[in-house]
Amino acid sequence: MKRIAILGSTGSIGRSTLSVAESFSDRFQIVTLAAGRNLELAFEQARRWRPRLISVAAASDAEMLGSRLKSAAVMETQVVCGPTGNLRVATYPEVDFVVSAIVGVAGLEATYEAVRAGKTVGLANKECLVAAGELITAAARERARPLLPIDSEHNAVHQCLRGGRIEEVRRIWLTASGGPFLHTPKAKFAGITVEQALNHPTWKMGNRITVDSATLMNKGFEVIEACRLFNLAPEQVKVIVHPQSTIHSLVEFVDGSILAQLSVTDMRLPILYALSYPERVPSELNFSLGDLRHLDFCPPDMEKFPCLQLAYEAARAGGGKTVALNAADEVAVEAFLEGRIGFEDIPVVIEEVVGETPTGKLESIKQVLGVDQQARAGARDRVARRSRGRLPAAAITLPQT
Amino acid sequence: MKRIAILGSTGSIGRSTLSVAESFSDRFQIVTLAAGRNLELAFEQARRWRPRLISVAAASDAEMLGSRLKSAAVMETQVVCGPTGNLRVATYPEVDFVVSAIVGVAGLEATYEAVRAGKTVGLANKECLVAAGELITAAARERARPLLPIDSEHNAVHQCLRGGRIEEVRRIWLTASGGPFLHTPKAKFAGITVEQALNHPTWKMGNRITVDSATLMNKGFEVIEACRLFNLAPEQVKVIVHPQSTIHSLVEFVDGSILAQLSVTDMRLPILYALSYPERVPSELNFSLGDLRHLDFCPPDMEKFPCLQLAYEAARAGGGKTVALNAADEVAVEAFLEGRIGFEDIPVVIEEVVGETPTGKLESIKQVLGVDQQARAGARDRVARRSRGRLPAAAITLPQT
Repeated sequence: MKRIAILGSTGSIGRSTLSVAESFSDRFQIVTLAAGRNLELAFEQARRWRPRLISVAAASDAEMLGSRLKSAAVMETQVVCGPTGNLRVATYPEVDFVVSAIVGVAGLEATYEAVRAGKTVGLANKECLVAAGELITAAARERARPLLPIDSEHNAVHQCLRGGRIEEVRRIWLTASGGPFLHTPKAKFAGITVEQALNHPTWKMGNRITVDSATLMNKGFEVIEACRLFNLAPEQVKVIVHPQSTIHSLVEFVDGSILAQLSVTDMRLPILYALSYPERVPSELNFSLGDLRHLDFCPPDMEKFPCLQLAYEAARAGGGKTVALNAADEVAVEAFLEGRIGFEDIPVVIEEVVGETPTGKLESIKQVLGVDQQARAGARDRVARRSRGRLPAAAITLPQT
Repeated sequence: MKRIAILGSTGSIGRSTLSVAESFSDRFQIVTLAAGRNLELAFEQARRWRPRLISVAAASDAEMLGSRLKSAAVMETQVVCGPTGNLRVATYPEVDFVVSAIVGVAGLEATYEAVRAGKTVGLANKECLVAAGELITAAARERARPLLPIDSEHNAVHQCLRGGRIEEVRRIWLTASGGPFLHTPKAKFAGITVEQALNHPTWKMGNRITVDSATLMNKGFEVIEACRLFNLAPEQVKVIVHPQSTIHSLVEFVDGSILAQLSVTDMRLPILYALSYPERVPSELNFSLGDLRHLDFCPPDMEKFPCLQLAYEAARAGGGKTVALNAADEVAVEAFLEGRIGFEDIPVVIEEVVGETPTGKLESIKQVLGVDQQARAGARDRVARRSRGRLPAAAITLPQT
């Protein structure tokens, strides 16, 4: 029986993890949950799973949840809150495995402390590797604990890497769906609307990651994550566009053999893989290979998608650059979603902010968060300058109140 | 330094193995060779590689080769001959690794004895598994020695299997190019010529295996080989047509993940893999994944290609049935190549011969060879009956002498 903590239990990955735990209740026991701001779902999850500890964002929420659970006769669950609450969830002594799925830098410290506490960590939080990858992978190496990737691409790489030793890897290939603008000519990028950007062809995800998929910045983040997770140089991490998203990634070995991983596009599969590793557990998440007809591939267009290029440059420069890349992107995408800047402004804002961020190794999560704050401020400043005089797209359709 | 014996050094796989040994002379030493009937090439190979032992088919050939080598001042090579010579090559004490690449049942005994002598064996001889698979895999298991497949499909499976334990395999998928008649309607099969059957779309191989690829019997043999090699039920071994032959095979695990192996279509790659296993050695046999555009797939048409169906049936029945399948196929293909029977007669001959062969476990190579002889006689008999009154296709174009 593996004893699980979930950081980010009310988000998409958190809910899928609980669904996996539901299907395999003989293997996985939910011990602690960090739930964030969705109080209603936090209550439901605590009532269903009876964790030893549940953490919510605010102290007032904790109080409210505590009394609701008491009324519902849920006596075994202690309610905690805030960053300290998340830390307690992540480092709870009886936990073996921590699923790190809090969106954004909020999950950094708890994940880092989970690794330092000797937990096996399943990583679904991008920032853990993009912003604090050097720190977190070093801590995991020191304790000889595996970091198990939960997103589909790195999970695929992890599976293919079993075909050889890491020293025998020539390069890896991350597949990209290409997003909704794969076939849109560059000349039309200026007119791209929020609605168009949110229309992802293969995966249903949150708004920010969907826009990041449309700019290919998400693939850029994945390149950085892969460098950190598998200790590869940016030149060893390639991107190949594969619109069907059937092959999730590939590993090319020094002898010329390439291994690829294919499966259904369902996040429960990499979650189950990570939770069960090194075992494989029978599931019903079948891909009907017999029905497969075509797989298409093409190289990514770096000129059309400058965000991918920016990610490679940040990966090479290292230090604060990748922290700034993530922070500036989050601010820019939010501004795009609110109609304050255009689709083509996203890479411009990011490039400027990353450009003014110093390189140099970051020694603590605190330093990472400092660079993050500074980059966000820089990005907001630039967004404001670019949006001045621009009629917000959203305002056109919003009712006048 | 791995010390290598090659059974079948003058054939296609044997020559490719020597080419690999040439490129990696710091890793592989050629210790013994079994060369067969090509005396000129046997002489060249002995002069180049200076093996301790070289075996040729006939005693008279051995004498001739011996004196030529003496004249050429090759003093370290002893020349032996016949089945006994092959056995000495295969079981030579200083040999670590035996490449089994003699075409046909002639290689069975030497391969079996190599396994029993505790050698690691790389299998390129189909008959070893189709006809004597139960004996040879049992002997390898007893001595805990690996059997490393050298053909591209099973080699691919071997690589993908590293992604999990054998108990975690749901099924495997062997890819088939589909051969030259993938898109030919069944109605035109009666008119298929030898030239058309020898025109394989992706691999350059010998005549029999090329015809076996056109009938899909070769894939049927591979299904049987896979059952024996990986200890799988015939239901667990699927075939998927993939005309580009880029993915060489796939393994589907119980959790729903599928691993696939891709590479150039060059036999030196599986040879290098088998010789180096469990290491991977840097080579220049690169597949340019960045240039990949399309991969196509479709299910095999068992009605158009009854040989594949016959192979599944023989695999399920076991015992002498798969011996007869191979023997009858060899006779029928030879008759087709000589214009004595038509393309559509091949499965008919095989089905009749397999039908009259008893099932039941075979306990020795001698028993295997007995069933093989009987099946060949039966097949020749049936070929004679079918070709009676038929104008040999070849005779039409042969000059009258």
